[in-house]
Amino acid sequence: MPTNKQQLLDNRPEGEAVAGNFRLVTTQTPELGDGQVLVRHHYLSLDPYMRGRMNDAKSYAQPQALGQVMQGGTAGEVVESRSPRFAVGDKVVGLGGWQEYSVVDGSQPGLLRKVDTTHVPLSYYLGAVGMPGVTAWYGLTKIIAPKKGETLVVSAASGAVGSAFGALARARGCRVVGIAGGPDKCRYAVKELGFDACIDYRQHPDVGSLGEALKDTCPAGVDGHFENVGGYILDAVMLRTNAFARIALCGMIAGYDGQPLPMAHPVLILANRMKIEGFIVSEHMDVWPEALQELAALVAAGKLRPRESIAQGIESAPAAFLGLLKGRNFGKQLVKLI
Amino acid sequence: MPTNKQQLLDNRPEGEAVAGNFRLVTTQTPELGDGQVLVRHHYLSLDPYMRGRMNDAKSYAQPQALGQVMQGGTAGEVVESRSPRFAVGDKVVGLGGWQEYSVVDGSQPGLLRKVDTTHVPLSYYLGAVGMPGVTAWYGLTKIIAPKKGETLVVSAASGAVGSAFGALARARGCRVVGIAGGPDKCRYAVKELGFDACIDYRQHPDVGSLGEALKDTCPAGVDGHFENVGGYILDAVMLRTNAFARIALCGMIAGYDGQPLPMAHPVLILANRMKIEGFIVSEHMDVWPEALQELAALVAAGKLRPRESIAQGIESAPAAFLGLLKGRNFGKQLVKLI
Repeated sequence: MPTNKQQLLDNRPEGEAVAGNFRLVTTQTPELGDGQVLVRHHYLSLDPYMRGRMNDAKSYAQPQALGQVMQGGTAGEVVESRSPRFAVGDKVVGLGGWQEYSVVDGSQPGLLRKVDTTHVPLSYYLGAVGMPGVTAWYGLTKIIAPKKGETLVVSAASGAVGSAFGALARARGCRVVGIAGGPDKCRYAVKELGFDACIDYRQHPDVGSLGEALKDTCPAGVDGHFENVGGYILDAVMLRTNAFARIALCGMIAGYDGQPLPMAHPVLILANRMKIEGFIVSEHMDVWPEALQELAALVAAGKLRPRESIAQGIESAPAAFLGLLKGRNFGKQLVKLI
Repeated sequence: MPTNKQQLLDNRPEGEAVAGNFRLVTTQTPELGDGQVLVRHHYLSLDPYMRGRMNDAKSYAQPQALGQVMQGGTAGEVVESRSPRFAVGDKVVGLGGWQEYSVVDGSQPGLLRKVDTTHVPLSYYLGAVGMPGVTAWYGLTKIIAPKKGETLVVSAASGAVGSAFGALARARGCRVVGIAGGPDKCRYAVKELGFDACIDYRQHPDVGSLGEALKDTCPAGVDGHFENVGGYILDAVMLRTNAFARIALCGMIAGYDGQPLPMAHPVLILANRMKIEGFIVSEHMDVWPEALQELAALVAAGKLRPRESIAQGIESAPAAFLGLLKGRNFGKQLVKLI
């Protein structure tokens, strides 16, 4: 039985999350019971939603339990199987958590999904052709529901969700403007992802300045917005919305540390007859097949070229995660475990 | 030709609206042209949305022009007609503005609507069986779309919109909790309108206290909310929402004076996967016939018993309007002009 290094949530953040919130332990993987599968994780996915779970607060997800392995998406390979549904060598995606191996009940539907790595690299199933990609797809098609020619904005544009959003929006004939942190990310969004424009919010650190940049890049106003960040970025976009604008609210990364993060001008929801809707994609499993099919096709056609930031080894997971929360990643943040 | 007293918008409010923003003038009604109708107004409707139009700000409606008659809904009687579509004596509802008479082009559809006062008093066509009633109907059925047994909250519960909302919600088998200012309004909401409970916000002047009252009156949480006020009332209700709650945003009376009125916890939209949608009912004329039919039936059945605050004479319109903005009215605020 191989040894299994794990990252546990040791204690909850007071304000900002820090490396000391996590604890690395080494265990042995257990003997498999009947129907169980041992998965060796090749990649661990790091995602902003994990910060929310670190708090002991009412939220859509149960808080991450203290002293337990941090939860999270994983992509890997079956290395031992006592399930008729999985064979050694199968490439699989699941929710294995921040550890090198996981034991999964192979009979329970949805826990572990076999994936085909012929045309799509394994790691992409944690990003563009996985939960982040479907997140973009749901917000775009089910909440924003854009018409051809409309102008859409997405924050965190170079990230896993934002990049998929850009490609999906372009495929629907929309003008799509990204917001990202730094000239490299903005250049990538325009040159490689096909965004019509990308605003560097670091050059526009307040509502007024960002509003001017939005005015320049969205001369016809904003019809739809996919919000991954919250705070002054949302405020600035709201001030540029057209009548009947739709905002899909997917992330509020700026507020997870517990500071109050108000919306400055909710009266605009009324004045512009806007719709703002929050969602989490795991509650809409019915759309995943359709979404994943379109996302895989965009990747195969070269129209969605995701970037990845890859940290090496389970030891590096906390630092990589904290960097993600500060926007230090470029594209999908992963930890490579082999 | 009769004389016609009119209230004009003389100058725009700086902060709070004041009586000096209006100017009373006396004119003569003009000779009717071909196809025109002279309407003598019996009632002028005063509505919170008018405050928004007094500002020279981007909003859903054109700002009220300076030096012009204040716009507004009116109910009255045709006293002279050069239109084949209207006869002297017809009871009509229209947008005659803050004046005693108006001249209307009888051929233009939608400007003037004949109403039947056999079972519904004329003034009700400005309230429960008019724009405010349809506003409640739209927010309830098209945005909140409640299921039987859900808990709904409405602010300004004893007003024209709120009282209609209560009756419509009760008819759908919902628990409906009002928020209103003062014990008389709360008693009326429960005893006469059939609300399950009504919270006096004057007894709960902050988010914490109002939140406790909502906890007591909505033990199963809040599934839908119809917001007429904004500010800390909206904040408090949002903190008590269940997953997938829907908020219809109809008014932000507290913010019209130009102070910033932030939403304290927009992260709840995400955490509770809420939908918040703003609307104005005049953009949804297609639903009016269905809505008015249900509202008239509720009135006829005694299930919707609207109250009215009636000021006398066009001279009293500014003071009555300013009182409405401060919640001094009880039920639908009207000005009687005959």
